[in-house]
This record gives sequence, C-alpha cells and structure tokens, in this order.
Amino acid sequence: MLNTFSQFLPSRIYASYDVETKAPLEAALETMAGEQSSGTFLALPGETPELKARYGARVERIDRTSESAAATVLSWPIENMGPSLPNLLSTVAGNLFELKQFSTLRLTGLHLPDEFRAAYPGPQFGVAGTRRLTGIANGPILGTIIKPSVGLSPRETAALVQQLVDGGIDFIKDDELQADGPHCPFAQRVEAVMAVINSHAERAGRKVMFAFNLTGEIDEMLRRHDIVEQAGGTCVMVSINSVGLSGVTYLRRHCRLPIHAHRNGWGLYSRSPHIGISYLAYQKLWRLAGVDQMHVNGLRNKFCESDASVLASARECMTPMFNGANRGCEVMPVFSSGQTVRQVQDTWNALSTADLIYAAGGGLMAHPAGVAAGVRAMRQAWQSAMEGVDLQTAASAHVELRQALEKYA
Amino acid sequence: MLNTFSQFLPSRIYASYDVETKAPLEAALETMAGEQSSGTFLALPGETPELKARYGARVERIDRTSESAAATVLSWPIENMGPSLPNLLSTVAGNLFELKQFSTLRLTGLHLPDEFRAAYPGPQFGVAGTRRLTGIANGPILGTIIKPSVGLSPRETAALVQQLVDGGIDFIKDDELQADGPHCPFAQRVEAVMAVINSHAERAGRKVMFAFNLTGEIDEMLRRHDIVEQAGGTCVMVSINSVGLSGVTYLRRHCRLPIHAHRNGWGLYSRSPHIGISYLAYQKLWRLAGVDQMHVNGLRNKFCESDASVLASARECMTPMFNGANRGCEVMPVFSSGQTVRQVQDTWNALSTADLIYAAGGGLMAHPAGVAAGVRAMRQAWQSAMEGVDLQTAASAHVELRQALEKYA
Repeated sequence: MLNTFSQFLPSRIYASYDVETKAPLEAALETMAGEQSSGTFLALPGETPELKARYGARVERIDRTSESAAATVLSWPIENMGPSLPNLLSTVAGNLFELKQFSTLRLTGLHLPDEFRAAYPGPQFGVAGTRRLTGIANGPILGTIIKPSVGLSPRETAALVQQLVDGGIDFIKDDELQADGPHCPFAQRVEAVMAVINSHAERAGRKVMFAFNLTGEIDEMLRRHDIVEQAGGTCVMVSINSVGLSGVTYLRRHCRLPIHAHRNGWGLYSRSPHIGISYLAYQKLWRLAGVDQMHVNGLRNKFCESDASVLASARECMTPMFNGANRGCEVMPVFSSGQTVRQVQDTWNALSTADLIYAAGGGLMAHPAGVAAGVRAMRQAWQSAMEGVDLQTAASAHVELRQALEKYA
Repeated sequence: MLNTFSQFLPSRIYASYDVETKAPLEAALETMAGEQSSGTFLALPGETPELKARYGARVERIDRTSESAAATVLSWPIENMGPSLPNLLSTVAGNLFELKQFSTLRLTGLHLPDEFRAAYPGPQFGVAGTRRLTGIANGPILGTIIKPSVGLSPRETAALVQQLVDGGIDFIKDDELQADGPHCPFAQRVEAVMAVINSHAERAGRKVMFAFNLTGEIDEMLRRHDIVEQAGGTCVMVSINSVGLSGVTYLRRHCRLPIHAHRNGWGLYSRSPHIGISYLAYQKLWRLAGVDQMHVNGLRNKFCESDASVLASARECMTPMFNGANRGCEVMPVFSSGQTVRQVQDTWNALSTADLIYAAGGGLMAHPAGVAAGVRAMRQAWQSAMEGVDLQTAASAHVELRQALEKYA
C-alpha cells in the first residue's frame, strides 16, 4: 500500500493498515486516528480544532477492497513523540488491535521521516561487514545451526563445530533455545567453540562466523558480547522479540560485532490473517535499532509462511529505508527452515542476489556423503543458479549435487 | 488448565496451551515439545535417548475438548535455559505459533520454579507501597488520565492537573502516546506538574501519584526516572510491550519509584481466538521483572475484552506466584477504559477487594457538577458497594452519585 503512496511530507510518520469493519468505514478510521493521537471516546474541552489540526493523526488514503474492508494509510506528526522507536510502536501498533470497530486490523507498512535515521545507529556491519568478516566475497554465506538445540555440553558443541568447519561451512549459529543454560554455560561454550574456529582460521585463512546466542538481561548480554569479542568471535545472536526494542538498541550501542537477529515468536505477530503486523513494517524497527542480519524464513519452509511473503520480506530487508548513501539501513536476510539444494534456484531467480545467509540443518548434514559433501552440493547449487545453468545439467557435472538431489527428492 | 494440574516438580517449567490440529493430536504435541527442546524435523545423530530424557520437553497432560482440540500442559527442565525471562519466552512462546500442524495455539498459563524468584527482583512497591505513597489506606485508588493524549504543553498539562488535584483525585497518568515529544518535553512536564502536586500535597497532607510516561531507550528512561524522583514524583509509567522484557527488567533494577505498567499493544497478543498468549501467562513475566501496577482493562470496557477475562486477569495479578511471605510478586491491577460509577458495584462484587487503581476519564471529568463532584460520586459508589448498600439507596443519600447515575445512564 505504501509502495503506491507518494505524498510523504517531511517530519511525518506514515503507517498503512488492512482493516475490516462492520461500522461505516470512514467513521471507524477517524476513530482509530483519534484514539492514537489527540482524541478519546468522549469529546473533551481541551481538544480544540487547533490542537487537533496540529497533533491529530490523519487518514491519508482509503482504498476499499470490499464493502467492509480497505487498505488505508494514516499519518502522524513526529512532533507527537519525537524519533523514539518504543514510542513509535505505541503509536502505530499500540491500543489499536483491541478496537471493537474492527474485525481485521493489520499494520502492513511503515514510512519514517529522516529524524529517525539521525536518532538511531542502524546496522553496524550489514552485508559488507558480514562478507568481510567471513571472507566470503561472492555467493551466499552458507550457514547451519547447532542441533540438537539443547543438551550438548560445550565440549560436544565444539566437536560438532569441528565437523562443520572441516566440512567447509561459512556460518554457524546457536539454536535460539540455547543461551546460557547451566548444562552449557555461555563462557565455556564460547571458549570451546572459538578454540576450534580460531585454529581452523589459522589453517584456512578465513574465519567461520559463529553467532553466539547472548539473549538475556542487559548486563548479561554486554558481558557475553565481551566474552565473544575477547575470544576472537565475530558475531552475536539475539532473540529480538524476547529481549525487546530498547534492550536490542542498547546492545547495539555497546556492540562491536555483527548482530544476528532471531525472530522467534514471530508467528504471534504474523500468523493471524486478522490481527497482526507485517514483516514489511516490523523489520524496519529492528534495522533502525541496528541489527545486521535478519531471519526471513525460506521457500517451501516447514512453517506456514507463503513463498511470496518470504520473498517480500527478503527484498524489504535489502531496500533502503532512507535516501542517501549509507543511510539505507540494509540488513542481510537469513534464509532457513527446511532448506536444501532444492530451493536454491527459485531463491536466486526470485531475488537475483546472493547477498544473503543461506542456512540449512538437515539439508547439509544429512547428505549421504557427509557434511563436507553437503556444503559442496549447496555451493554447486548456488553456483549453477548464479551462472544460469539448470539444476540437472549442473548435477551431471557434480557428484555431490547429484547425491543431494537424490537424497532431498 | 494449570489450576487443576498438581504434579509440579521442582526445577521444571510448566506451560499450558489450547491447541487445535488436523493431525493426530498426540503426535502433533510431541512435535511441538521436540521443536521447543532437543528435537528438529529430522532425527539427528546427537539426539540420544539420554539427552532427550534429560532435556526434552514433556507432554504432561492432554485434555481433549473436541475431536481435534485440547487443553494441554508441557514441561521443561530449567536446566535448558536457566532462570532467564527472555530465554523462557523464547522457549514457551518462541517458534511455536507458526507450526503448520496447529490451526490454534494459545499459551494459556505458566508455572515457574523457585529459581526464577531468586533471580528476579519482582515488584518493589506493589499494593502496600502504592497505598503508602498515595496516603490512601482503604478503598480503591481513584485515578484518571491526561486528555487530550497529545497536544497539551507542559503548562497546559499542569493546569489540567491543578483541576484534578483540586477535585480530590488520588492518581493521574500520562497517556501512553505522551512521552517526550518536542511539544511537551518530559523534563518540563515533570517540573510543571510536580509544582502543582507538591504544592497541593503541602496543603492536603497527601501526595497525588502521577505516573509519568518515561517510555524510551534505556538511558533515556533512567534519566527520566531520576528527573521524576528529584522533583518529588512518586511513580513512573512504561509501555512494557514497546520497551520489552530486558529493558523493563533493567529499569526496575535502577528504579526507586513504583512502575506503572501500560500494556498498549496487548490486543496483538490477545485478540485472536487462534493465536496468542493469555494474560494469565503474560502478566507473570512482568511481575517477576518487577512492575508494581498492571493494566487489566475494566468491566464493560470500550475494547473487545469480555468481563470474565478482565476479572480473571485482575484476580491473577493478586494471586501469589510463589510460596512464602513477600515472594508472591502481587501487583496492583489498574482498571480503566470507559469506567463510570456504573461498573463499580459489579467490580467489587466480583473481586471483594479494593486493592486496585480505578481509573476513569470521561467517567469523572464529564460529571455535570465538575471534576470534584465526579471524584466524590466515584468514592460514593465504591463506599456503598463496599458497605453492601445498593446503588439506588446510596444515590438517594448522595447528590453527586445521583447526578453521575443520570449522566452515565
């Protein structure tokens, strides 16, 4: 909806919504605008016409999609709350979802004025920084995840990491369920894993990026960040919904490593067709807060998200939020969830870029000839896609890819 | 569901869910338990029976409510994540809502082991502290909210506060849309408002509690807290969903004033009958984090929450989370949203306690004889309810209550 809206004024915030109501549409939207700015359910003496004109939210556009439904754009002056992400969230996604008038209310898009870019750091590393730290200049960054999610000791985790780095992987992440549990303490996990990664880096000339899950309280996260940095690690991961906006922003200001943003819990925001927030709006908050890599699910994933939604999310992560060089806050999308060599060509064809992390678990590790063959097969799939060679032709030239196609039929 | 579950073991986390699935129920629940602990969609070599027995989530109970639906209880060992609220959230409400197997998945309850109580501060003031600071020993704390929500200058806000304190109010709060916007800077608002409140306190012998909305980034919130404290203020308000768990926990550790928790955005979690989190689970996270007052909506409110849900939320806020004196983390429920003298008797009858903040906007201020009469009418309504006097009898003895009943018919 905001894609086709072009009357953005400076110093105003624009949010688009899909709504459905049994009430007269215009009146319901005016109520919504009033509730989220100067109004309330009763006319009050202080709400003068001057005050309303200056601070009231405006219904900018209504595109009816049926008798009772519409795509709509509302706007607010930034003067109402200043360039503050938490207060922006209370304004565009606060006491709205409970309004009796609406049977559907979904925040579908967000356009922010330049004041936000000035107030927030944005990503510190993004695509270029992630490529530099991994030493992968071209093609996707091939990733995987430590499994089982919980239960491995630091030593067992490091043994698995050894297999993975020997297999030629570029990127590994903790599971979001593994942070600093007593059976696998964070500091000991970092020490054991980084011994493997540093030693491999000396031999291989490039360092595998491990996203250590530092999710926790503020002090804990800062302490864990420093542990990773001191051990030579190159990435930290955070469960953004569990920590929250202010905590992630604070972490970013302290952080000297890329932040891998895990969106677990995202289904709560996105699954209902009636109530929720689109990733097209949601990811902008976290990009401004300053994460570097964001999960977008993957094609034909094991969850219930459609391919169209996955691709729209990935494209949005790579689309500048503001004008001007280095102001776009682009982040690296992370593809995952049931990914194998089978989804590579479609992913490439849809996006025409490999500026992404492509993570697979079973899709690499269950390769019949082992992890190294799994990684090679995945690179072969990407290489052939990027060169415009079809999958069957590529498979006839590469035994690992051929085996993978048979395995993941 | 957890109310009738009695087999809680120490050092385990219990979460109840309402689920619906087209798949065989037991198998779907085992998948859910696996996804949130040691399993994944493929059997992996590292997931040994020993590991699974120790770290795997367990399906503790399944109460079928129909062919395809059930209320269920799952449990986890605290060893998986330690007593960490953000990591707890990633476990009990993480990558669950997107599972294809389920058409309904709602987290309905939470039972936490004592380790959490040892790790978190809980409320610093609660009911007793709020009563002490307001000087209201008995009956509800009568509250109201600054309206229009945004647009008033600090001076205009203070003028409205003057009317309210002169009218005999106990508690006032900022709107959640008003934090530190350029038209009403936080520091100037505090200065102007506290001049009125302090001066009134000197005359009246008790200080009206004003919940200043300090929502923002971590550093901003700490700075704003100190401004309120130095000006003699007695409460700060935070939009908990906008700030997030780690930010609110951090604020609490610094805070020397009661924290008024505003739940704006709550409809996103609660409105869908299919996907979401019950307040019975949700409020426990924030109580442990350490807020003192929590919004629960009100009877016959202007949103779409049922009275039964409002009352269940309020009761839960007042129910101890853990055993032992001073370990219950009880918070003061805040009633609001379209409240007038009309809902008082039903609220009292349902709860048999007045350990609550009862906030009304138009319900006080639109009284035909003015704010002071509105406050008196509300106290008369509560007094008569608490004494078992019916509303009509009370109205015949009190002119303000009579006028209010006519106004809010």
